[in-house]
Amino acid sequence: MNFFYAPPENWKDDRSEVEITGQEAIHISKVLRNKVGDQAFVVDGIGNRSKCEITDISKKSVQLKVLETNSQNEPTTKKVMAFGAIKKRDRLEFAIEKAVELDVWEICVFDADHSERSRLNEDRLHTQIVSAFKQSGRFYLPKLVIKRSLDEVLEQYKEHSILMAYLGDEEAESPNQLTDSENLLLVGPEGGFSKREADFAKSNGAQFFTLGKNRLRAETAVVAFLSQFLFSK
Amino acid sequence: MNFFYAPPENWKDDRSEVEITGQEAIHISKVLRNKVGDQAFVVDGIGNRSKCEITDISKKSVQLKVLETNSQNEPTTKKVMAFGAIKKRDRLEFAIEKAVELDVWEICVFDADHSERSRLNEDRLHTQIVSAFKQSGRFYLPKLVIKRSLDEVLEQYKEHSILMAYLGDEEAESPNQLTDSENLLLVGPEGGFSKREADFAKSNGAQFFTLGKNRLRAETAVVAFLSQFLFSK
Repeated sequence: MNFFYAPPENWKDDRSEVEITGQEAIHISKVLRNKVGDQAFVVDGIGNRSKCEITDISKKSVQLKVLETNSQNEPTTKKVMAFGAIKKRDRLEFAIEKAVELDVWEICVFDADHSERSRLNEDRLHTQIVSAFKQSGRFYLPKLVIKRSLDEVLEQYKEHSILMAYLGDEEAESPNQLTDSENLLLVGPEGGFSKREADFAKSNGAQFFTLGKNRLRAETAVVAFLSQFLFSK
Repeated sequence: MNFFYAPPENWKDDRSEVEITGQEAIHISKVLRNKVGDQAFVVDGIGNRSKCEITDISKKSVQLKVLETNSQNEPTTKKVMAFGAIKKRDRLEFAIEKAVELDVWEICVFDADHSERSRLNEDRLHTQIVSAFKQSGRFYLPKLVIKRSLDEVLEQYKEHSILMAYLGDEEAESPNQLTDSENLLLVGPEGGFSKREADFAKSNGAQFFTLGKNRLRAETAVVAFLSQFLFSK
């Protein structure tokens, strides 16, 4: 059965019906050629997955009635992955897709000291996140946040425990289990974090961690770092 | 300084000189436009990195003299990553590039029960491995091995400890430290391993491991699995 996404505002208050609009509606009617009576799963991105049946279908809007709903609680341990903007689009999109698969709670892309000011197509990235979200069978849709400096990132997530992938002067530890509920994982851009950024993060309570002895590309570091916490709840 | 690759047969016996040929030579002469006297690092893929100086340059061949050499021992813990052939080329290449960055010793791509028979462009994949190898600063060039079934893979690596990413009937553990020197990590194709493959691997001593609760794409599983062993020596 297919999976579709409909944001919270598209659902009737009593959750008996839902409407799918936009590109998703066009996809359902024109590409998949679904018909009235067909069933599908519809997720709302805030913890609920409903088995539904199509009651009306047009190019702009697909109406479904809800047959049954499965809900999941928010994770106890949330991981925000903030990484310096990656210039090459296919690598950036891989980082984002993999972050969603690997259970990220929020994705933050920021302009680092050693990266060029990014011009991100937020709509395109959001579409990507929704696509990876549906494919992975997750219940919560990760948010996308864009920031213009590490300083802005730390301001945004000021209550989070900060784990920074950075090899400083001292011996960094390998990442362990996450013990806190709100975690901010930081990965630098291709050129690495600047000394200024490392000092600033440190003064804000960041712990430095190593991701092994090999030099990793930025998008690989994003995936490798999140993979240290596959079993967090 | 640039990094170039020259396989063992291109080096003079006493390692005083080396010749770069093929695409690399064309790249050096036509794209980078290096000149006699320019310096570069040249790696041989079997543990040695030499700082060299160009002594002669043409489109087909670049001659260099060796100034100094740095050598590294083979790792104590070797990781062979064998994964079911991934159909989409960009995802396959992503898996291969990341495997090289994450210190894989050999890369094996095989036709799994649940994947279509692959038609891989081995030259193209080899070029990719060399490129990722140079970029990552590693000393050993991973080999590429193509097999037609999991059975062939287990025959090829019959002395290796087998770690299989597979959720069986019993509760699988999360991957730990690697304790043996020769390790075979197995990841299935998009459709997952078949029961036959799992039983066959088990009867050959495979241990099953989980990569968390989310369904991961094949190339993500490759990276996540290797990321469990970032600190193996």
